[in-house]
Amino acid sequence: MNVEERYKLVTRNLQEVVTEAELREVLKKKNPSVYWGTMPTGSPHIAYFLPLLKIADFLKANLKVMVLIADLHAALDGVPWKILEKRQKYYEALIPEMLKSLGVNTKKLKFVKGSKIQDNPRYFRDVLKMSMLSTINDTTRAASEVVKMSDNPKLGNLIYPIMQALDEEYLKADIQFGGLDQRKILVFAREFLPKLGYKARVELMNPIIPGLIGKKMSASIEGSKVDILDDENIVIKKIKEAECQEGNPDNGIMQFAKYVLFPVKQDKKQSLKIERPEKFGGSLTYRNYEEMEKDFISKKLHPLDLKNAVAKEINSLLAPIRKNKAKLQKLYNEAYQK
Amino acid sequence: MNVEERYKLVTRNLQEVVTEAELREVLKKKNPSVYWGTMPTGSPHIAYFLPLLKIADFLKANLKVMVLIADLHAALDGVPWKILEKRQKYYEALIPEMLKSLGVNTKKLKFVKGSKIQDNPRYFRDVLKMSMLSTINDTTRAASEVVKMSDNPKLGNLIYPIMQALDEEYLKADIQFGGLDQRKILVFAREFLPKLGYKARVELMNPIIPGLIGKKMSASIEGSKVDILDDENIVIKKIKEAECQEGNPDNGIMQFAKYVLFPVKQDKKQSLKIERPEKFGGSLTYRNYEEMEKDFISKKLHPLDLKNAVAKEINSLLAPIRKNKAKLQKLYNEAYQK
Repeated sequence: MNVEERYKLVTRNLQEVVTEAELREVLKKKNPSVYWGTMPTGSPHIAYFLPLLKIADFLKANLKVMVLIADLHAALDGVPWKILEKRQKYYEALIPEMLKSLGVNTKKLKFVKGSKIQDNPRYFRDVLKMSMLSTINDTTRAASEVVKMSDNPKLGNLIYPIMQALDEEYLKADIQFGGLDQRKILVFAREFLPKLGYKARVELMNPIIPGLIGKKMSASIEGSKVDILDDENIVIKKIKEAECQEGNPDNGIMQFAKYVLFPVKQDKKQSLKIERPEKFGGSLTYRNYEEMEKDFISKKLHPLDLKNAVAKEINSLLAPIRKNKAKLQKLYNEAYQK
Repeated sequence: MNVEERYKLVTRNLQEVVTEAELREVLKKKNPSVYWGTMPTGSPHIAYFLPLLKIADFLKANLKVMVLIADLHAALDGVPWKILEKRQKYYEALIPEMLKSLGVNTKKLKFVKGSKIQDNPRYFRDVLKMSMLSTINDTTRAASEVVKMSDNPKLGNLIYPIMQALDEEYLKADIQFGGLDQRKILVFAREFLPKLGYKARVELMNPIIPGLIGKKMSASIEGSKVDILDDENIVIKKIKEAECQEGNPDNGIMQFAKYVLFPVKQDKKQSLKIERPEKFGGSLTYRNYEEMEKDFISKKLHPLDLKNAVAKEINSLLAPIRKNKAKLQKLYNEAYQK
């Protein structure tokens, strides 16, 4: 794979690359390293397949991939310290299962617990150093789209972006990968790491897909998401109730198809099939999202038929995970005190 | 020494005790511990004799006394990281000399470098925990009179009070002692330590004496202070130029006499002598501050005669320190890039 092929695979479906020139430079290395951080807060939902699919791309492009389970960040986002470890354990068990259901060889991934690299006097010193370079305004702005804050934020909410910046250095990563909601934090990292004498990293950003209901599929907004442990019938019910206006592709169902279902199908050289009774025109088959979107906009594809197909695809993505449901559910119950 | 005698000595000349009942309880212990923290920022001046005199009292009352050289706090107050260690070395050399000039046996004191107890993962974790309990408003208010802050503070300025609170716990101190300017931080410590499951400490506060010029004798306001390394003639000149309105005792000269010179004299069972030519009424002798203040208010004691006497007393306090001037001046020059 030459640098240009590698670049294409690494950036597939991304929303933003900062910067493209720096990424091309990094991809000339044999094994550039990239990290994705996830904080164990709310229970993971199907939009988590987006970053995990990118992780699959990174591995195919021969990148060294690290998944950071950012436990201390979850605490700085408000997860009570007492249940932090339980949340972290649930994430640690669930994410590899999700990766496996996408066909990713998790042995090639490195999982890192945040506190493991952060419980370090040198790290703490760097937190203090960066805290003397950045103001309340800088850190409030950086944290604003990621950290749950009131009008009078907790001080810890503002330490969050500083630690995320430092993680790039302490993981010795060439690249950080996150959702577009992370943009302000990633830009903060690029600005402040060099002030400490560390190099600015390449930042890769995934699109954010809309919720089933509402603007963002969020772990902390119950109606917005399909939880990974939801049963088959619940999935069907939630998808049925999802917002999906005829002719308008700007909704969680279409975007999930675009960013998760089609890439999965394409990697397997398969098409997405929408089953439909003969009396409504018979089944449809799409090789890519653009074909499907065209039909949806022209109202040739009705939301109900789309929903049935998408619910079926989600259930088949979740099927392998459900084989370990008992173990996962137990961890879930402990993590979320259910 | 019974508890009441001990209480009297420990609280001599203090401005505030929080709380008196708790202090009495603590003083029932055989060796209660107290700490005084000083951050190596500006160059120490003669008002530093105030807390050092209290330290002498604490030692006489059989308290275990710790002097914390709060290096990281100095950084959070804006001292550049590069010169922090040099400032700290100057303080570490100078403060024992000042104590010796007061006749204090420094072998009974324990000097602790702040970063030594703070470079600890458990400490960092506690910083994060407290940072999730306290808001920007809480910490801004706590830091406001101690930390040099702009309208848009650095995040580190607000970490300062959190670390000062935790130091009480990590030093295993029963009591913290500081200037009245520390009040908001000490109150913050009492509020937030128990939220982490640690006990609230007794807080002892010294009065703040006015500057020679201006409201506060401050290491960072040049005209306000007599520096410990000032030569004899400089001391005489600065005292001569100090604000000291006839009849009004609210000034740095009178307050220095009250809180430093008289306690020193009284401990030696001496009086304060004000030399004055016969033609102006001859010399005056005071056993305590109240006698002198009475004469000053009634204008029987003129500012010029007071100043001459105070300059002489300051110079005799500084004389033993000047014996090590060469060594101290070298450290000073490195610390302040002179």
